[in-house]
Amino acid sequence: MISYDEALRLILTETDGILPGTEEIILQDALNRIIAEDVISDINMPPFDNSAMDGYAIRFTEIKSREITGEISAGNFSNISVDETNAVLIMTGSKIPEGADTVAAVEDVIVSGNEIFISSDSKIKKGSNIRPLGSDLKLGETCVYNNKVITPAVIAVLAGCGRAKVRVYNRLKAAILATGDELIPITEKPDGDKIRATNIFALKSAISASGHITVDCGFMKDDRNLIKDKINGLLQSDADMLITTGGVSVGKYDFMKELFEESGVERVFWRANIKPGKPFYFGRHRKGNKTKLVFGLPGNPVSTLVNFHVYIEPALNAIFRQKERLRIPASLTGRIKKSDGKRHFCRGVLSNGINGPEVFPLSSQSSGNYYELGNANCLIIVPENILNPKEGEILECILI
Amino acid sequence: MISYDEALRLILTETDGILPGTEEIILQDALNRIIAEDVISDINMPPFDNSAMDGYAIRFTEIKSREITGEISAGNFSNISVDETNAVLIMTGSKIPEGADTVAAVEDVIVSGNEIFISSDSKIKKGSNIRPLGSDLKLGETCVYNNKVITPAVIAVLAGCGRAKVRVYNRLKAAILATGDELIPITEKPDGDKIRATNIFALKSAISASGHITVDCGFMKDDRNLIKDKINGLLQSDADMLITTGGVSVGKYDFMKELFEESGVERVFWRANIKPGKPFYFGRHRKGNKTKLVFGLPGNPVSTLVNFHVYIEPALNAIFRQKERLRIPASLTGRIKKSDGKRHFCRGVLSNGINGPEVFPLSSQSSGNYYELGNANCLIIVPENILNPKEGEILECILI
Repeated sequence: MISYDEALRLILTETDGILPGTEEIILQDALNRIIAEDVISDINMPPFDNSAMDGYAIRFTEIKSREITGEISAGNFSNISVDETNAVLIMTGSKIPEGADTVAAVEDVIVSGNEIFISSDSKIKKGSNIRPLGSDLKLGETCVYNNKVITPAVIAVLAGCGRAKVRVYNRLKAAILATGDELIPITEKPDGDKIRATNIFALKSAISASGHITVDCGFMKDDRNLIKDKINGLLQSDADMLITTGGVSVGKYDFMKELFEESGVERVFWRANIKPGKPFYFGRHRKGNKTKLVFGLPGNPVSTLVNFHVYIEPALNAIFRQKERLRIPASLTGRIKKSDGKRHFCRGVLSNGINGPEVFPLSSQSSGNYYELGNANCLIIVPENILNPKEGEILECILI
Repeated sequence: MISYDEALRLILTETDGILPGTEEIILQDALNRIIAEDVISDINMPPFDNSAMDGYAIRFTEIKSREITGEISAGNFSNISVDETNAVLIMTGSKIPEGADTVAAVEDVIVSGNEIFISSDSKIKKGSNIRPLGSDLKLGETCVYNNKVITPAVIAVLAGCGRAKVRVYNRLKAAILATGDELIPITEKPDGDKIRATNIFALKSAISASGHITVDCGFMKDDRNLIKDKINGLLQSDADMLITTGGVSVGKYDFMKELFEESGVERVFWRANIKPGKPFYFGRHRKGNKTKLVFGLPGNPVSTLVNFHVYIEPALNAIFRQKERLRIPASLTGRIKKSDGKRHFCRGVLSNGINGPEVFPLSSQSSGNYYELGNANCLIIVPENILNPKEGEILECILI
C-alpha cells in the first residue's frame, strides 16, 4: 500500500490538469477570493513626500532657530516655501512644502512664541521623518501578484490602486454524493439499522469553508445501476470534481471503484497507509483538455472529514498555487495509542501553553466518533515510524 | 503610557458589557457562526451496536469453527440469531445480529466453503470490533456546548442530532467612519495632497472576515460639528461598536478624543506603548444596560489594520467567549530593527521551515507601507524587552 506522502504527491500531480476560469467582481465582494491577475499600481505610494510625524518642516542646516511661517495638515496643503530661516508646522501624513527636506519632530524642538529652536540633543539629520513619494510602491510597479488570496490587507492595497473591480478565479464546483442503504434524512429519527446522512452536510460546509461551491446530489441507496447513471451524469456535468462517500472499502457492497472505472474514470490510487480514512479512492476523468478529479471517500464520518483535510484541501490549494499549509509543532498533553506503521491523523485541541503550543489528544480516536471530531481544532500528525507517542512529545499539527 | 497587556486587559474587561442577541437559522447557513445553546443528542451514537470492521459476527467461545448462516450489510439488517455454532458475514457499520458479541475481522479467519475457522494466531477477544450503542454519545448527553464556533465537524454533529435548525448568536454590527481632509474616493486619482480612503475597505473586510457586519459610514472631512453630529447619531443607533480612523494623534486636528467625550463616551485609555498604532483611543458608551465599544484608530493604513488585529479582534473573540488566539513560535529569517521599549507588531511571512515554522520579516516596517502588509500572513510580536532581534531568534507570531 502506498504511503501518505506518495498518495498526496499523486493527487497534487493531477491538480495541474484543472484550469479554473476567471471573473471580474467588485472589490467589496473579493474577500478570501484568489486574484487572477498581476495588479499594477496606478500611482506612487505615498503619492507625495509626506511627514511621518507631527512636527516642523524645515530645510536642514546647522542653524538652530527658525520662524514659524504657517501650518499644513493632512489634506490642507499650503503653498508656503521653506528656506533656512523658516519652519512650517506639519501634521503626520501631510505633504511637505517646497524647499523643505526634513521634519523636526515636536519632541526635537523648543517652541518660543513664533520661533522654534532645534534642541541640541536632537538626532535629526537631513531627510529625517520624511516618507518620500513612491517609497512604498512606485507607479507601474506590481503590488499584488496573481494567485494571492485577497485578505483585508490586500483589499486595502487594491483600494489604494483605485481598483473598484478585480479579476479573480472562479470558485470550483464540487459535486457531492453520499451512498449507502443505511442512510436516512437528518430530519428523521434513525430506526433499526439506519443512520442519519451527515456526510453531505460535513462535506458541503468543508468545501464552502475552503471558498468553493458544491452541488448537493443527496444520498442514494447501494443500487449499482442507479449510482452508475448518476456518476455518468456528473462526469458529463460542469462540476470540477466529484466527491462520493461510502462503498470504497473491501466489503461486498463496495462497488464504487468499479462503477467509477466503468464510467471512464482512470484510477490513480486506492488506499493509502493512513488512519483513519485508509480506503480512499482517487481517480481522474479526462474529456478533451479538461480533467475532473474524483475522490471516493469511505462512509465513516470521521474518515470523510479527515480525508477532506489531508487530501482534498491540499488539492484545492495546489490548484490555485497556494503555499503548503502551516504545520505547527506542539507538545502532547496526553498519550496516543498507536501500534501500527500507518500515518495517523489524530483529533486534538491545540492551545497556547506556557512553553509554546500544546495539543490535547481527544480520548477516543475511534473513526466513528464525529462527536469528538467536533471538539477538535487540529489534526495531530503521528508519522509512520512513531509508536505510542507520550506526554511531552512534540508532534506537528494542522489546523482544521 | 500603558503597556499593551494592560491596554488589552482594559478592552477585554469592557467586553462583558456587550450582550449579543440570538437567532435561529437553518443548519446549511450555520458555518462559522457561534452556537447560542447547549445541544443535546436526541439519539444514541452509534444508534445500535455495530461492526467496526468487515468480518464475521460470532458469539465468542473457544470453539474455532462455525457455519456461515447469512450476511448483513449497512442498512440491510437481517434477523439471523447467532450462537456458538454459527457466524454471520458483516460489513463495517452494520448492526450486530442478536446473540453475537464479537466480530472476527476478515484477516482473523480462514474461510472454507460455508465454514469459517478462527485463525490460531488471531488476537480477538470477547467484544472485539464492536462499537456499542451510545459509545460515542448517549441519548440526552450534551454534544455541542454554547459559544462553540460551528466548523464543518460541528455541522456533522448537529446533523447527527437531527438539528435542521440551530440557535446562533447574532453577528455584531460595527459602524465604520473614516475622517480626514485628505481623503478622496478610491475611484478618483489622488492629486495634490489627497490620498484614497482605503481604511474603510480594509476595516469592512476585516470585520467581515471575523464573521460580523458593518455599517459603512464613508469618510468625512475634519469638520468638528459635522463629525460630532455623526458620532452622536451612531451612538444612538443599533450598532454594537463604533470604529473611526484618523484624528486621534497629538496634532492640531486630532480632535476625535474630545468629540467622543463631548458625545458621552467615557475614555478607557488613549495610547498604549506599541508600534505601529500607538495613538489608539478606546472608550465605552453606556445607555441603560447596553454598552457600545468605541475604537478610535489612527488614520495610517498599517496602524489601522494592526490595531484591528491586536485590539478589536481579541475583543470580538472575548465577547463570544472564544479562546485566546494561537501564538506560533517561529525562527526569524532576517533581522528586525527595534531600538525602543515598545511592543512591536511587525509584518511577516510565516512558513514551514526544515526545523519548524520560520518567519521572514518584511523589509520595510514603515507604518505607511500597507503594500507590504498585503504580503504578510502574520504579525511578529517583538516584546518590550527585546531589542533588534536577529536571524534565528524565536518570536511568537499571530496569523492575520
